[in-house]
Amino acid sequence: MKKQVKIVTIGGGSSYTPELIEGFIRRYEELPIGEMWLVDVERGKEKLRIVSELAQRMWDASPYQVKVHTTLDRREALPGADFVTTQFRVGLLEARIKDERIPDLHGMLGQETNGAGGIFKAFRTIPVIGQIIDDMRELCPDAWLINFTNPSGMVTEAAIKKFGWKKTIGLCNVPTIAQMRESGNIGETEEELTYQFAGLNHFHWHKVTNRDGEDVTAEVLKHVNEKNGGTPVNIYQEPFPEELLDSMKMVPCGYHRYYFMQREMLEHSIQEFKKGGTRAEQMYQVEHELFELYAQPGLHEKPEQLGKRGGAYYSDAACECISAIYNDRHLRMTVSTENKGALPCLAPDSIVEVSSLISARGAEPIAWGEMPPAARGWLQLMKAMEECVIEAAITGDYGLALEAFTMNPLIESGKEGKRVLDELLVAHEKYLPQFAEKIQELKAAGVETDDEVVRELLRKGL
Amino acid sequence: MKKQVKIVTIGGGSSYTPELIEGFIRRYEELPIGEMWLVDVERGKEKLRIVSELAQRMWDASPYQVKVHTTLDRREALPGADFVTTQFRVGLLEARIKDERIPDLHGMLGQETNGAGGIFKAFRTIPVIGQIIDDMRELCPDAWLINFTNPSGMVTEAAIKKFGWKKTIGLCNVPTIAQMRESGNIGETEEELTYQFAGLNHFHWHKVTNRDGEDVTAEVLKHVNEKNGGTPVNIYQEPFPEELLDSMKMVPCGYHRYYFMQREMLEHSIQEFKKGGTRAEQMYQVEHELFELYAQPGLHEKPEQLGKRGGAYYSDAACECISAIYNDRHLRMTVSTENKGALPCLAPDSIVEVSSLISARGAEPIAWGEMPPAARGWLQLMKAMEECVIEAAITGDYGLALEAFTMNPLIESGKEGKRVLDELLVAHEKYLPQFAEKIQELKAAGVETDDEVVRELLRKGL
Amino acid sequence: MKKQVKIVTIGGGSSYTPELIEGFIRRYEELPIGEMWLVDVERGKEKLRIVSELAQRMWDASPYQVKVHTTLDRREALPGADFVTTQFRVGLLEARIKDERIPDLHGMLGQETNGAGGIFKAFRTIPVIGQIIDDMRELCPDAWLINFTNPSGMVTEAAIKKFGWKKTIGLCNVPTIAQMRESGNIGETEEELTYQFAGLNHFHWHKVTNRDGEDVTAEVLKHVNEKNGGTPVNIYQEPFPEELLDSMKMVPCGYHRYYFMQREMLEHSIQEFKKGGTRAEQMYQVEHELFELYAQPGLHEKPEQLGKRGGAYYSDAACECISAIYNDRHLRMTVSTENKGALPCLAPDSIVEVSSLISARGAEPIAWGEMPPAARGWLQLMKAMEECVIEAAITGDYGLALEAFTMNPLIESGKEGKRVLDELLVAHEKYLPQFAEKIQELKAAGVETDDEVVRELLRKGL
Amino acid sequence: MKKQVKIVTIGGGSSYTPELIEGFIRRYEELPIGEMWLVDVERGKEKLRIVSELAQRMWDASPYQVKVHTTLDRREALPGADFVTTQFRVGLLEARIKDERIPDLHGMLGQETNGAGGIFKAFRTIPVIGQIIDDMRELCPDAWLINFTNPSGMVTEAAIKKFGWKKTIGLCNVPTIAQMRESGNIGETEEELTYQFAGLNHFHWHKVTNRDGEDVTAEVLKHVNEKNGGTPVNIYQEPFPEELLDSMKMVPCGYHRYYFMQREMLEHSIQEFKKGGTRAEQMYQVEHELFELYAQPGLHEKPEQLGKRGGAYYSDAACECISAIYNDRHLRMTVSTENKGALPCLAPDSIVEVSSLISARGAEPIAWGEMPPAARGWLQLMKAMEECVIEAAITGDYGLALEAFTMNPLIESGKEGKRVLDELLVAHEKYLPQFAEKIQELKAAGVETDDEVVRELLRKGL
Repeated sequence: MKKQVKIVTIGGGSSYTPELIEGFIRRYEELPIGEMWLVDVERGKEKLRIVSELAQRMWDASPYQVKVHTTLDRREALPGADFVTTQFRVGLLEARIKDERIPDLHGMLGQETNGAGGIFKAFRTIPVIGQIIDDMRELCPDAWLINFTNPSGMVTEAAIKKFGWKKTIGLCNVPTIAQMRESGNIGETEEELTYQFAGLNHFHWHKVTNRDGEDVTAEVLKHVNEKNGGTPVNIYQEPFPEELLDSMKMVPCGYHRYYFMQREMLEHSIQEFKKGGTRAEQMYQVEHELFELYAQPGLHEKPEQLGKRGGAYYSDAACECISAIYNDRHLRMTVSTENKGALPCLAPDSIVEVSSLISARGAEPIAWGEMPPAARGWLQLMKAMEECVIEAAITGDYGLALEAFTMNPLIESGKEGKRVLDELLVAHEKYLPQFAEKIQELKAAGVETDDEVVRELLRKGL
Repeated sequence: MKKQVKIVTIGGGSSYTPELIEGFIRRYEELPIGEMWLVDVERGKEKLRIVSELAQRMWDASPYQVKVHTTLDRREALPGADFVTTQFRVGLLEARIKDERIPDLHGMLGQETNGAGGIFKAFRTIPVIGQIIDDMRELCPDAWLINFTNPSGMVTEAAIKKFGWKKTIGLCNVPTIAQMRESGNIGETEEELTYQFAGLNHFHWHKVTNRDGEDVTAEVLKHVNEKNGGTPVNIYQEPFPEELLDSMKMVPCGYHRYYFMQREMLEHSIQEFKKGGTRAEQMYQVEHELFELYAQPGLHEKPEQLGKRGGAYYSDAACECISAIYNDRHLRMTVSTENKGALPCLAPDSIVEVSSLISARGAEPIAWGEMPPAARGWLQLMKAMEECVIEAAITGDYGLALEAFTMNPLIESGKEGKRVLDELLVAHEKYLPQFAEKIQELKAAGVETDDEVVRELLRKGL
Repeated sequence: MKKQVKIVTIGGGSSYTPELIEGFIRRYEELPIGEMWLVDVERGKEKLRIVSELAQRMWDASPYQVKVHTTLDRREALPGADFVTTQFRVGLLEARIKDERIPDLHGMLGQETNGAGGIFKAFRTIPVIGQIIDDMRELCPDAWLINFTNPSGMVTEAAIKKFGWKKTIGLCNVPTIAQMRESGNIGETEEELTYQFAGLNHFHWHKVTNRDGEDVTAEVLKHVNEKNGGTPVNIYQEPFPEELLDSMKMVPCGYHRYYFMQREMLEHSIQEFKKGGTRAEQMYQVEHELFELYAQPGLHEKPEQLGKRGGAYYSDAACECISAIYNDRHLRMTVSTENKGALPCLAPDSIVEVSSLISARGAEPIAWGEMPPAARGWLQLMKAMEECVIEAAITGDYGLALEAFTMNPLIESGKEGKRVLDELLVAHEKYLPQFAEKIQELKAAGVETDDEVVRELLRKGL
Repeated sequence: MKKQVKIVTIGGGSSYTPELIEGFIRRYEELPIGEMWLVDVERGKEKLRIVSELAQRMWDASPYQVKVHTTLDRREALPGADFVTTQFRVGLLEARIKDERIPDLHGMLGQETNGAGGIFKAFRTIPVIGQIIDDMRELCPDAWLINFTNPSGMVTEAAIKKFGWKKTIGLCNVPTIAQMRESGNIGETEEELTYQFAGLNHFHWHKVTNRDGEDVTAEVLKHVNEKNGGTPVNIYQEPFPEELLDSMKMVPCGYHRYYFMQREMLEHSIQEFKKGGTRAEQMYQVEHELFELYAQPGLHEKPEQLGKRGGAYYSDAACECISAIYNDRHLRMTVSTENKGALPCLAPDSIVEVSSLISARGAEPIAWGEMPPAARGWLQLMKAMEECVIEAAITGDYGLALEAFTMNPLIESGKEGKRVLDELLVAHEKYLPQFAEKIQELKAAGVETDDEVVRELLRKGL
């Protein structure tokens, strides 16, 4: 019998943790957890306490004896870990509020994984991933890093290419959700269909065949614009132009809406902002309610409400991936991993999000072949932008950050875009030591945001 | 002694023809012209008459005996041609007015070689280039096609890759102007410096070294934002952010302004539009004045005014290129030609605009090597977009046209962008037989532009 | 329930057919065969009769009712076929004798799938595959072509790239045998290990991991030189230099012996030849004995002797592959299929032999990533040679044939190699109509082989 | 006026130095030499004296005052150097004798730049180039390294890619000789023709056009097999098969004979060897006579005899290249330089030998585009082999050396090839410190060569 598994979850105080616990409980027979560690930072201490107590109650209500440990020092948790999962958010929800409000204020998309917000999430997260890997190298050199911190693709690329942790797999719930919904939409079960995904995290396409090998993508495309079309609930469901779908002959992911219907998505984002709340701020309330619920001593299962959030199925995907590795299952799953030629239009050492086989070997990407010109051009642009972002995240190179901003299709190029970059740098100062010098310079020049909410957060030292 | 040369100029009635004539006169000793044919269409008949008479007067005032022929049937002119130059504008200035006004009306950039306007110029021009090549194959199978009809890069790609005319070279005045201005700006003569250009037409970068081989690009970059920075006069001179220039370490071309300072360039375009005139409409007046001048029997040289236009040096570049081929000169010149690996980030059979050696062999591109990530991503996006445009131009595939529109950084994606596509299709119906079916469908659905100027043109059957 | 399957086997009179029948019988519950057609040529009529009668007896002895049809006209068999398997040998064993004897006579390797022999097998086979595909296009446009006619990689490349039959999969028994033997050699079951193969048919490498994801390739390599090392029995078991194995860190396939220990393999080939028999001639006897056995009315199962031949497991691999397609099994199997980037050092549209998933979608190659320099160089050379061979096979271009001969590492370049080419062309005249003109020219110049056995065959009109 | 130039020649005692001096004298007006240093090793001291005295006499007989310095310590010579030329031979002629005799003894090609000999020349030379570059980095950080030590391509790749000296240009006389001879053969002057070369050092092809741009390659090919076909005199002139030339449609270089007519070239090599002398040994005598001549105080010009050797025009090419850099001439010349995409079938950072423009910027390769399959495969194989050789030369990795030997088309794979590797390692022990450990092991196992000449050299400590 294989040995019991030690799991360490960085960002363990997240409201999504109960989904993770539930996933592990459901799979206990195939994936015997020995020990579970939830790690968080000082500011997340209270949430960590609430979540870990719920987690323990969930295990206790199960047939299995698993102890949930907590710590604010990841070095205490890591020794001997088999799997380290990362689901932390540097700067917590307040950072997301800044990522969303500042672009909106300047008439650009305020969104946490795309556009300016996504770039800044990468700037804050990548250095921390580097530190976690430093610790892993020392304390659990054989562990797998299962990342679902966004922007998952860039974080995974940094982990593998820059920090050299080959045993990293990046996860996302977008492919999961698409598969669940689309099969139902065309009257098939998920098992009857084969999905092939290829592209980048939050920027991929897929094709679908049925069990006779017939391409049913066109049929799936007919339902993409429906309410249950397969797009995560956190994305505004502006319909794709039908002629575009017909011409692509591949199903775009939900996030493509930001790129293909930019004006509509932008208008919606600004409208929300003006109505007084970005998505991040709505989350405040949702999170608050969830934690109230979690704190109830009578609760010992994942509450239903959690499943309605944009991040649903993320944690379950993580459990599934971990089990597939542990059990050498050769499971077909869409993950962020090294390209290895699967998408010949990108470099073999780039990280891509593609259908892969997950086994004890890790992820083996399934070769997709050449993309049609439009998708190829989009992917090459986005990957180049990602490379600039990752390099800037590590070096603090302002010029590269500006190049990334200039290329990013969701950020207006020119003075206003640069202004957004500068305001975000100043607003996130606390979490961007690599840019310290430039931020001082900007502050000396009087750069600060006019957004009242952000100013208030800064006044509070957040 | 080599044989005398026969030149055929398609679009001979252009106001730029006198520059071409001047160029040939100045080079007569090295490039002995035997015969010159100016070809135009029925609607350009009067201009053709005026220009050809001026051309003949110019030759007559020179020491050389050259007869300028005119015809409205290119098949009369082509037999035995050594060089065919193309400088025609399908639909004349009225088509440009539509290309510029309709996007402007919808809050997008109105410009004739970039964005929506550039795509439609390709849609109208590429099929005609195909017809010209069909005629050349039959009537002058050894002739060189020297194209300076815009969008020069896409037209050249269509000519070489799609219509198979390998002996095509695409020209542009942008590199010429940069070289002239920049050398002066850093206190050097043009001869002292070596320029290496690489990229796509209206989307390239260059580096500069001095005669000691030292890279003086940084010095050149210091002057790029100056009035005489090297950008053609027809482009609004919004300054590039200095940090962007420093980070790129290459000189962007003037047209990069549209991509790197999009909001400012857009605002300027809309402002002009609201002030009552796109650039095309200003050209009406300029052209009118030029032709009045040309018609004066006393004029027998290229008038100075011509040199102040955006298209200056185009024709001179053509003369230089033709002479370099004829005299096997191995002249270093920046042209649109087959990539052949010069830019490894693009396919070897793509057309690129790079420093090349021009000789009797045609253009031999000088290998540039790998581009830094941002430039690489931009180029790959733009080339992919060009491929969609060219394919749509030939097949009339609406879906591909929409994909090109969606990718193009200067066109807003979503309903509004699609609306611009549809209005332009309807507005250019006369010159877009390949899209006839779709245009009928759009018209049946009531698509028409609200722009009064364009509506007036359409009412006049233009 | 899925419909019953119609199988057509071209070259049905082969001595390997009983293995195929056995494979289908064993899988009947998952792969319900409705009809089975064995097709062969006039010269193979008698063998076809014997084999088909045995086949029918085998089915009759099984619990299943399947009718075995025979025909000498494939057009009679093809209509409505679901799977067409190809296992024919153009020119029968006599052609193989020529392929082996003529190179041997000139001191070069005489082998039927590598070197000069392999090239000529391709020359004879590829045009016939083209004709079969023409018929399939007309008569069974939805059928899969499962090719195991050698040289399987080149034949598959011709079928997919040149004749456009995308639904082709090429099979080989070499990976099967390696997996069976190697697992045992290191004390594991085949199921415990994961094999990843990549390369070309008869020229690939693989790596092995155990169920904990640990790379056990080094351990496998320790046994490669053993009697049961995993190399097919028809290859002389000259040991690989240990330092070479250690340096490669991948397991070479058995056929690499010809390339890595060329002198030893050559000497063995010549020795056999001098002892009076190439492998082909030994096969004569073996085949004779097998058919005597097959003809016995009491036999109604695959005789044991068949399993000891070099081609064992080929047919079983075919059954497995067909079942995986029919049942949409997503089975991991090593096949010849379109690269699609799986090996980034080769073109995406090249055919490669790689670990793939076999399902109703056909073969999906698993991306391997970059090869180390030596393996990369070898593969690129061999693929380039294959391209020349395939092109020459279709066009009859003698210059390309000579280029292929000159590149092929197993053929000496220079006059002697060219002589081998010429003698083989003349010797195979009957099956090489595409080279007819050149062969006439060679014959006029007096080219004929000195090999007495081959001369005797030619005298007999074989 | 530009400053005077300081030249340092490593291996200054070479018999080719007078050609270099002559070249500098002839170009003095355009390339004013201030100082000239000839550097050599202790064992070459006497030759250095003789050559340097002749060199000084040559300068003294010219109108120019140039002082020729000598030193056995390159660190004395390097400070302030503008150009460092390398023409040294590690181990002198005795090393070449070993490179040639040992393979011959085992029935393989004995040649100093191809096959086993070329690989060992790389093993001895590359580490020394690394040391020279270390010194240059410290003492003359702006100098150009003009390498003509063979194998020039691999040495240049090591210098640029491995040791990071971007300002390196590799030279060879093969393209020079081809251009000189071929133009005459087709009745043209060299100036009338344009040559485009591409490939690797001693493994390239070229095409030729006339001043009308017409491809005259086919005409040139007609003369390739003639005595004056363009192949250096040191290569045995076995004719290429005509059908091969016709099929390639490019002119192969002289060294291709070893690969395309391997048996004939090998036989010739063995014959020479058996007749008692490899080329190296013939050189002994030639060198002896040359140095007797050089020592005559009355000689003050390059003696005619030198021009008849295989290495003729090497030094002149170096002078031409240096002058082109100094004078920023943009001279078209074939050199070894960074690929940068010029040959898309090889990596952009590989070193290739291609037609380039030589100016103060260094070498700018002219893009060639895609190679036909056969040439592509050959180049990719050879480059992969070079990569293994270079890596082994730096690291002393025996496995990689064996992989290179196994791939090299001129070395038989298997035991005998390995034996050649082992004997050469032992024979060259003195100059291969990187392989010291393995050599000890081989010696302990009793490996030594049977060649008497080599044994005698070893007994003498050479």
